[in-house]
Amino acid sequence: MPDQLTIIAPGLLGASVARAAYDRGLAKRIIIWARRPEVRLQIAEQPWCTDAPTSLAKAVTGSNMVIIAAPVTHIIGLAQEIAPHLSPGTVVTDVGSVKGEISRLGQAALGPRGHFVGSHPMAGSEKTGWEHGDAKLFEKRTCFVTPLPETDPTALDTVARFWHNLGSDVVTMAPDQHDEVVANISHLPQVIASMLCAYLNRKDLTWRNYAGGGLRDTTRIAGSDPQLWRTILEQNRDEVLRALREFQDELQAFHAALSNRDLIDVTARLERGRAYRREFRP
Amino acid sequence: MPDQLTIIAPGLLGASVARAAYDRGLAKRIIIWARRPEVRLQIAEQPWCTDAPTSLAKAVTGSNMVIIAAPVTHIIGLAQEIAPHLSPGTVVTDVGSVKGEISRLGQAALGPRGHFVGSHPMAGSEKTGWEHGDAKLFEKRTCFVTPLPETDPTALDTVARFWHNLGSDVVTMAPDQHDEVVANISHLPQVIASMLCAYLNRKDLTWRNYAGGGLRDTTRIAGSDPQLWRTILEQNRDEVLRALREFQDELQAFHAALSNRDLIDVTARLERGRAYRREFRP
Repeated sequence: MPDQLTIIAPGLLGASVARAAYDRGLAKRIIIWARRPEVRLQIAEQPWCTDAPTSLAKAVTGSNMVIIAAPVTHIIGLAQEIAPHLSPGTVVTDVGSVKGEISRLGQAALGPRGHFVGSHPMAGSEKTGWEHGDAKLFEKRTCFVTPLPETDPTALDTVARFWHNLGSDVVTMAPDQHDEVVANISHLPQVIASMLCAYLNRKDLTWRNYAGGGLRDTTRIAGSDPQLWRTILEQNRDEVLRALREFQDELQAFHAALSNRDLIDVTARLERGRAYRREFRP
Repeated sequence: MPDQLTIIAPGLLGASVARAAYDRGLAKRIIIWARRPEVRLQIAEQPWCTDAPTSLAKAVTGSNMVIIAAPVTHIIGLAQEIAPHLSPGTVVTDVGSVKGEISRLGQAALGPRGHFVGSHPMAGSEKTGWEHGDAKLFEKRTCFVTPLPETDPTALDTVARFWHNLGSDVVTMAPDQHDEVVANISHLPQVIASMLCAYLNRKDLTWRNYAGGGLRDTTRIAGSDPQLWRTILEQNRDEVLRALREFQDELQAFHAALSNRDLIDVTARLERGRAYRREFRP
């Protein structure tokens, strides 16, 4: 258990980590740093925040563990900024959705004083902002931890144990393999849901009022923040393009089967989809 | 209010109509006909069933209103079968997901004794079978009612009032327009969810264990019955193919934007999707 936990740039995920760590008694002190003064002022009043200092240097001083909860494009810059102020042996992790580049650059950004280990909790919401933080957000959710061969094994254990203690199912995986997996099970579904809505936005808008639960569920994540997703898709571009291309081929094969009135093939494709969906854990 | 309501071929929808009509006191007698004897025996024991006779003729005798809850491929055949046994003026409707052909053939199948008016409640579940029936299934859901110009106006009113009394938001629309609308807001999302799962079924199956809420929601309806959907897609083939082709164009344009690193266009497309999703009624 870290005596002092620092959370940098709390949005939905960072605030959820703070709430969960507080509820579960996982740190004696929880220090939070946000860039905007008004956010620091509001967060300083929350029971799950011990202190919300002005400077990033002060926020990390004396901490055993630091979580950089910023969007993927800001993680390495923040790691460089905190590096000179870390106590020797501090464990630093993040919550970014893409891990290849961050894992390769993270340790170099920290230098010799800190140990970088990438994390990616598969939890979130179409809502953003620290005020939507939820202490139960990570419970029974996968949290990827993505070490490199040279990652300090004790730091890896610390990060894995931290997410485990927050209620997550920890899965350790190489960063590049992680990026392939999430391109398929997270980034591709996001693109599909968003483009289904972008397509329907070009049709008669009154149709939306008739939508049943199917369209509603299928498109829920299309409500997510476009700026956040732009950076995720940019960082994982090659893997996302590959997954999207293969999905487009799958759709085209279905179009051909229905177009050719090959109803045996249509049914077989629907069956293959159902077989996959049925084995989801509850 | 019909004195006697007959429900033919109860699955999830038919049993839900029976439960809802019973709970809301919408018929004095609810007669149910199922093809299989074991289903008739079980249903006869339910509080929401007055009687479950063996013969279809007996089931419709004396009814003011008949709901054919069978899959789309069986509706016209059942309408022909009940026609000779209807009381003059009986109102007959269905719950099929495609309305063009059924609306055109329904009145001819009934002949002069009955009035056919098509219905399509936008309610359902990936579960099927009468035992999953739910009295609240239609509440606050759209129910399309699809008259032709020659449809009896009193019969149309009766059907619209019936769904209204079940808690649905009734929307009257020409059958062909209905089929275009549902191709886009119901059948296309089904194909997309099923094909996303069919695609993932060809990849590493352990990935499924890491899925977050996004993939889970996006693919829920992929668990639906392939045989049911095969007939829906077959009946609404032209409209579904048109919607699918346009969606494929949308996906391809997104692929091109990301491939070309045109992040302004990528973001604009995500924004267009979010703008659509945000206006969903709660």
